[in-house]
Amino acid sequence: MKILIIHGPNLNMLGKREPEIYGAGTLQEINRLLRDESKELGVKNEIFQSNSEGEIVGRIQDAMKKFDGLLINPGAYTHTSIAIRDAILSAGLPAVEVHISNIYKREDFRQKSFISGVALGVVSGFGADSYILGLRGLVNYLSGRKSE
Amino acid sequence: MKILIIHGPNLNMLGKREPEIYGAGTLQEINRLLRDESKELGVKNEIFQSNSEGEIVGRIQDAMKKFDGLLINPGAYTHTSIAIRDAILSAGLPAVEVHISNIYKREDFRQKSFISGVALGVVSGFGADSYILGLRGLVNYLSGRKSE
Amino acid sequence: MKILIIHGPNLNMLGKREPEIYGAGTLQEINRLLRDESKELGVKNEIFQSNSEGEIVGRIQDAMKKFDGLLINPGAYTHTSIAIRDAILSAGLPAVEVHISNIYKREDFRQKSFISGVALGVVSGFGADSYILGLRGLVNYLSGRKSE
Amino acid sequence: MKILIIHGPNLNMLGKREPEIYGAGTLQEINRLLRDESKELGVKNEIFQSNSEGEIVGRIQDAMKKFDGLLINPGAYTHTSIAIRDAILSAGLPAVEVHISNIYKREDFRQKSFISGVALGVVSGFGADSYILGLRGLVNYLSGRKSE
Amino acid sequence: MKILIIHGPNLNMLGKREPEIYGAGTLQEINRLLRDESKELGVKNEIFQSNSEGEIVGRIQDAMKKFDGLLINPGAYTHTSIAIRDAILSAGLPAVEVHISNIYKREDFRQKSFISGVALGVVSGFGADSYILGLRGLVNYLSGRKSE
Amino acid sequence: MKILIIHGPNLNMLGKREPEIYGAGTLQEINRLLRDESKELGVKNEIFQSNSEGEIVGRIQDAMKKFDGLLINPGAYTHTSIAIRDAILSAGLPAVEVHISNIYKREDFRQKSFISGVALGVVSGFGADSYILGLRGLVNYLSGRKSE
Amino acid sequence: MKILIIHGPNLNMLGKREPEIYGAGTLQEINRLLRDESKELGVKNEIFQSNSEGEIVGRIQDAMKKFDGLLINPGAYTHTSIAIRDAILSAGLPAVEVHISNIYKREDFRQKSFISGVALGVVSGFGADSYILGLRGLVNYLSGRKSE
Amino acid sequence: MKILIIHGPNLNMLGKREPEIYGAGTLQEINRLLRDESKELGVKNEIFQSNSEGEIVGRIQDAMKKFDGLLINPGAYTHTSIAIRDAILSAGLPAVEVHISNIYKREDFRQKSFISGVALGVVSGFGADSYILGLRGLVNYLSGRKSE
Amino acid sequence: MKILIIHGPNLNMLGKREPEIYGAGTLQEINRLLRDESKELGVKNEIFQSNSEGEIVGRIQDAMKKFDGLLINPGAYTHTSIAIRDAILSAGLPAVEVHISNIYKREDFRQKSFISGVALGVVSGFGADSYILGLRGLVNYLSGRKSE
Amino acid sequence: MKILIIHGPNLNMLGKREPEIYGAGTLQEINRLLRDESKELGVKNEIFQSNSEGEIVGRIQDAMKKFDGLLINPGAYTHTSIAIRDAILSAGLPAVEVHISNIYKREDFRQKSFISGVALGVVSGFGADSYILGLRGLVNYLSGRKSE
Amino acid sequence: MKILIIHGPNLNMLGKREPEIYGAGTLQEINRLLRDESKELGVKNEIFQSNSEGEIVGRIQDAMKKFDGLLINPGAYTHTSIAIRDAILSAGLPAVEVHISNIYKREDFRQKSFISGVALGVVSGFGADSYILGLRGLVNYLSGRKSE
Amino acid sequence: MKILIIHGPNLNMLGKREPEIYGAGTLQEINRLLRDESKELGVKNEIFQSNSEGEIVGRIQDAMKKFDGLLINPGAYTHTSIAIRDAILSAGLPAVEVHISNIYKREDFRQKSFISGVALGVVSGFGADSYILGLRGLVNYLSGRKSE
Repeated sequence: MKILIIHGPNLNMLGKREPEIYGAGTLQEINRLLRDESKELGVKNEIFQSNSEGEIVGRIQDAMKKFDGLLINPGAYTHTSIAIRDAILSAGLPAVEVHISNIYKREDFRQKSFISGVALGVVSGFGADSYILGLRGLVNYLSGRKSE
Repeated sequence: MKILIIHGPNLNMLGKREPEIYGAGTLQEINRLLRDESKELGVKNEIFQSNSEGEIVGRIQDAMKKFDGLLINPGAYTHTSIAIRDAILSAGLPAVEVHISNIYKREDFRQKSFISGVALGVVSGFGADSYILGLRGLVNYLSGRKSE
Repeated sequence: MKILIIHGPNLNMLGKREPEIYGAGTLQEINRLLRDESKELGVKNEIFQSNSEGEIVGRIQDAMKKFDGLLINPGAYTHTSIAIRDAILSAGLPAVEVHISNIYKREDFRQKSFISGVALGVVSGFGADSYILGLRGLVNYLSGRKSE
Repeated sequence: MKILIIHGPNLNMLGKREPEIYGAGTLQEINRLLRDESKELGVKNEIFQSNSEGEIVGRIQDAMKKFDGLLINPGAYTHTSIAIRDAILSAGLPAVEVHISNIYKREDFRQKSFISGVALGVVSGFGADSYILGLRGLVNYLSGRKSE
Repeated sequence: MKILIIHGPNLNMLGKREPEIYGAGTLQEINRLLRDESKELGVKNEIFQSNSEGEIVGRIQDAMKKFDGLLINPGAYTHTSIAIRDAILSAGLPAVEVHISNIYKREDFRQKSFISGVALGVVSGFGADSYILGLRGLVNYLSGRKSE
Repeated sequence: MKILIIHGPNLNMLGKREPEIYGAGTLQEINRLLRDESKELGVKNEIFQSNSEGEIVGRIQDAMKKFDGLLINPGAYTHTSIAIRDAILSAGLPAVEVHISNIYKREDFRQKSFISGVALGVVSGFGADSYILGLRGLVNYLSGRKSE
Repeated sequence: MKILIIHGPNLNMLGKREPEIYGAGTLQEINRLLRDESKELGVKNEIFQSNSEGEIVGRIQDAMKKFDGLLINPGAYTHTSIAIRDAILSAGLPAVEVHISNIYKREDFRQKSFISGVALGVVSGFGADSYILGLRGLVNYLSGRKSE
Repeated sequence: MKILIIHGPNLNMLGKREPEIYGAGTLQEINRLLRDESKELGVKNEIFQSNSEGEIVGRIQDAMKKFDGLLINPGAYTHTSIAIRDAILSAGLPAVEVHISNIYKREDFRQKSFISGVALGVVSGFGADSYILGLRGLVNYLSGRKSE
Repeated sequence: MKILIIHGPNLNMLGKREPEIYGAGTLQEINRLLRDESKELGVKNEIFQSNSEGEIVGRIQDAMKKFDGLLINPGAYTHTSIAIRDAILSAGLPAVEVHISNIYKREDFRQKSFISGVALGVVSGFGADSYILGLRGLVNYLSGRKSE
Repeated sequence: MKILIIHGPNLNMLGKREPEIYGAGTLQEINRLLRDESKELGVKNEIFQSNSEGEIVGRIQDAMKKFDGLLINPGAYTHTSIAIRDAILSAGLPAVEVHISNIYKREDFRQKSFISGVALGVVSGFGADSYILGLRGLVNYLSGRKSE
Repeated sequence: MKILIIHGPNLNMLGKREPEIYGAGTLQEINRLLRDESKELGVKNEIFQSNSEGEIVGRIQDAMKKFDGLLINPGAYTHTSIAIRDAILSAGLPAVEVHISNIYKREDFRQKSFISGVALGVVSGFGADSYILGLRGLVNYLSGRKSE
Repeated sequence: MKILIIHGPNLNMLGKREPEIYGAGTLQEINRLLRDESKELGVKNEIFQSNSEGEIVGRIQDAMKKFDGLLINPGAYTHTSIAIRDAILSAGLPAVEVHISNIYKREDFRQKSFISGVALGVVSGFGADSYILGLRGLVNYLSGRKSE
């Protein structure tokens, strides 16, 4: 099982940026947590960060047939990118949307997501742990271990 | 560490109700999963289901000082109850909001939550697994193990 | 054939309350008309009034498998209760929504119904006769005598 | 007692048109049901179908003093015609609005009615039976037999 | 100088219809007043009433080159007809819009006019006198006697 | 019969200001036309211009019992002044609202009038002639000569 | 003279809950103030708190004929309950709505009240004193001592 | 293969009307172009113009089974007619909507189409050529030559 | 302790104006009540009425350091004046907003207050008694006797 | 004559992506059709696909003076990119906007186009044929053969 | 070259009022800076502050022909005064709008300006420096030194 | 002191593009003015233009710690880019937003800025001079010479 993990714009600034909202950890630390968790879950992953909507679209398209699922924190593009939404639809991969902060507590314009409507599930507000929970949810789903 | 778990209106109908949206599992099965996971995480829990907004408000108030956190699927009250929002604020407990279905994929009126604005975090769309992920997120947060 | 009839909040005040809108008849008189009509149509019924959203939700859930259809005047909950909407969906019974007054002639907030979207049909504005017409419509539908 | 029955635009296509929404019955069959029911209720009726807003307006105006009540399915003009609304006001006849499908379950633009605000009552969603229930409601009202 | 005068839908019911809003005078009386005033102003007129949007559109088109101006009370079509708006634009005649009642005091849906945006001027609320004032305004304008 | 005529803010700039919208005539010329017309109609008038909302409110209050009617072009206060609306209500005088330009052809914010809802009638778009037509409409109304 | 005093949901948490918004006093202290003030004003009262919309509806219905007026802080139900609005209408008692905090300074969703439209008057923002002022206003009104 | 071509209201005024928006060509010239193109494409057509919504509805209904497709410029009814939308649905013919001007560049009220939602495709802004392109698109579709 | 009392536009017309809304008492009578109550409460006051937004702004500015609190009925400026809101902020005085009528029962445009957001508290709907209750609330607050 | 053809984001996925919406053809097939049609029409073209808003902007800018017209399917950027709109304005080339699916039948957010307002014309819903029709419309326009 | 400088309502309170928003400087200090800068730029100015909308309107009207440009901080009237907008239009002077605070960071109602739509340019958020920058921009513009 | 200057999409087209809106000067000329002004002000700058949202985000991130302030004309991204807003927040640099045209005079969609809410100040409408004024404002602010 192989998971593509995408970090959207400005997430490379984690740790340097607004710690009262995003915490003090860096993206490197999140990536390390993701690698540890992946090992524990027995899945492979590839991690990609970009500030460019077009590059993210391209990377999602390329994931088709090479990956089993997508874990994405679309950052600011959550609220403005229909192109990323369409890329997810076109790649046809189950996608989990995660957010470090609880976006439903923030500005009005951060409360509409173009991605949620095409995502398997959404995890928001748990800090770096949002990624870990989202990864677990995605892997459980893919393992058919989705309990219901 | 002690967690209060609340299931809102109609969740007692799980398994009997709209399986294409909510899956085939029953509330009993979800509760069993929650008890197993709690054991694994080393926390105690108490589970409560009610169709009554007022009873849910009361139960949350009573949780103050007796519990360390709240895991809640507010069901239909997610979208209509300011009283439950106020109860969470008044009890002062960290609360995690979970949904079995991905509410952001459904009717417009299901996309506004009065609860998210006072929740620590939100997990939506993973079926019964939403509860497990939410419980983990809550326990991690309470353990100060929130990684960031 | 067995029909559950539900009167929502404040309908117990009929006759005492705003007669220029709701007429001078009491709920007892409406219930008597409903029993007479049921007899004429050869169906059984059970009648329930409650001011509590949660109790109405519970009663609708219980109707599953015990009743063939639901005749409901949701009163003020028409405009605010997604929980009752979900209960109707979860019980899976054909439901007819009735209103004594013509709600489309009244305040703006009375013109949106959360129930209509899950109802078989709606009857509004005929006074107590709305119940009788709604009951007939429901029984005709259940009898497969729905003419089309 | 004499009732004018008006079918709005496209209702002449019933049976040929979208049977999953409007059923398989034709307008002729509905008219026959209406004539039978009228006989049973001891009232006379006259039936008129038109695709033209202006003709419907004219026919309603002419009904003044010649008819005791109006049973109307305004079809698509329900949502766009203030002229028909004004005609009903100007004829001064009690009017019942009926719809074959449950308009509150359909597109947003079908959920606003310019007619409901001047109607005695509304019946929606019972297929051809909506006409029969509406006719009964109107005749009961006119007979002073409106029970309340 | 020749003026086309158009009365929209339901204005043939004047005097019979809602006298508290439209007054007790009939359309015949208004037409007589218009003929008298025309004589006094030394202009010819032709008067046309129709309940049909299409006929009104056709009559305005025909007025091109045969008339110098248009006096129109579009009735309910004021608020719903873009076709009449386009007809006025296409005929290229100066048009004055009049209303018997003050439409800005009435229902919300009567406060938007598709006609005002292409009219020379608007007169509303003076009862039958709205027509006389509107005719004068139009004739003054056409006479180049518009004082400014 | 005595009429108070009020010109709102910036109307003292007429002739100097945006002639393509308001024409080339000055306020003095309009006032002369109003005096001539008043003489012809056999009524007295008093004319007042102010740029101050408060002064206009005061002047309308003072008109109570001293005048029989009010002719007002509220200028920009049309769209922003509830105080002038209330003053008209409190003076209890029939008021006619006039506009030189056709306000329904202009910016969105000029299409809402706080005054129209308390006016007898509205005349808009006839240039200086709007005042003359409005004065006639008001005097006809006061003379009981309102034809309907 | 007898007054029914109703405290809505979460008001039992006063003193324990968000003191920066609601102050440090408990509901017991407010009730004591209300009893003292009642004594001073020479009126009897009965005090009721509930977290349940349905129970509040029921209590207001029961007040009919037993009480002369209603003093209510509807809490969160202020913004969501049409059922309580209808109960007040159906009981036919003069009602005063009070709020401890100034609700017009808070979240948007707290600025719409379904209760104000059927209340005699509203007092908001004076802390516990809102109750005392509201009680005085109600008693003055009932005593016919309302000065105007 | 047989195509019904419908021109909506005011299109008979082409060439006489607002040439800066609609061009200088007449409807006769457009019809000639359509006949030439039809010949070239080897299809038959019938052309109909009407200012009446009801007549257009009737003509579309009649097309059922007699025509293979519909090419329609609904003119102003594009934005106001649900009846024409329903007629297209009820006739069950593939329909192409065309506009001479680019409606998306014009007034707000011209940017909502009730027809587009039931059309195969839309062509807008190419002048008379919109008809030719639309006809080709329709014929290609019907020929199964739709390339994809 | 010294209180500035401000009456906004048209309040000088009290008693003469719309008694069904504002009661029959005059402003003089209200002022007398305010003086009596002030004496009873042991506070000084100064009373000011103006129809001018600018004068009210100026008077509030001047109150800084000379008064301890502000009691204001902003009349129509409640709904339109950001300048008065800013003046209250800039003077830095606790302000109580009062209304004779219950503004939440009236037109939509009277339900938004620019003042409430900067007021200590609001009293609305008690007739002249609103002033007395508001004065008490303000004085209690200033006396530190605000009970909570 | 030289035409620049631009395919926006995700159009490289055609054939692989949601065939029920976009058909089974690939972008290569569409490009071949475009080349064939160009040959037939005697025009040159250049084809460009990009997922990047910035690259599309750049390419349009570069087209200035090198191309005679622009054929663009902006994909998801249709609904979100003002930068592409501005690029078209700044290049000053006639542009035709095409869509494979009928965007007016899809989600609300796909029904607003930032491009249509600066396009010569729009073609939507004909599958791959939308490109061919759009190309013809553009070439006809550029050839001055636009028939009107 | 002569510039009229206008300070709107409450700006006389600068230094005394909300220093966290408006800074600690007084209006006198700003005026001194403006006089120094004017000297440096070689232009004359006249400075006027008023809390009255009507006086500001009057002063702008008077500026016609006496001044070359207008520098205005309309304060709260920015968001509510169409009369000042019209005065600027009627005086026909280039106007620059300045704000001490960044109004786009503040309450929603401060983000709509009636003045910006008729201003040459807008400067917002630089504290007292907004005036200096605005003055320079205006003078540069008037000097034809506007570089572009 | 070092300033990063960013020009957003399409600003490289200045001089070639819509001179009636943006003037005839080129970006090179603006850059020369900026360099001259920087020299005069004694600050260093670096200038960057890009059509790519992602590149602009990246450049702003990189500016952290290397620059003291940011001068940005975000072009079309002003209205659509939350990513640039977040980059400014994450870099933590004081930013000044400038626009050549007065965006508040243009299309509705150009009147909402995602950048203004995180900018120190905004300058709009002075042509190329907007940059010079913005640079001065920024340098004054950084120099602590911000006068207030």
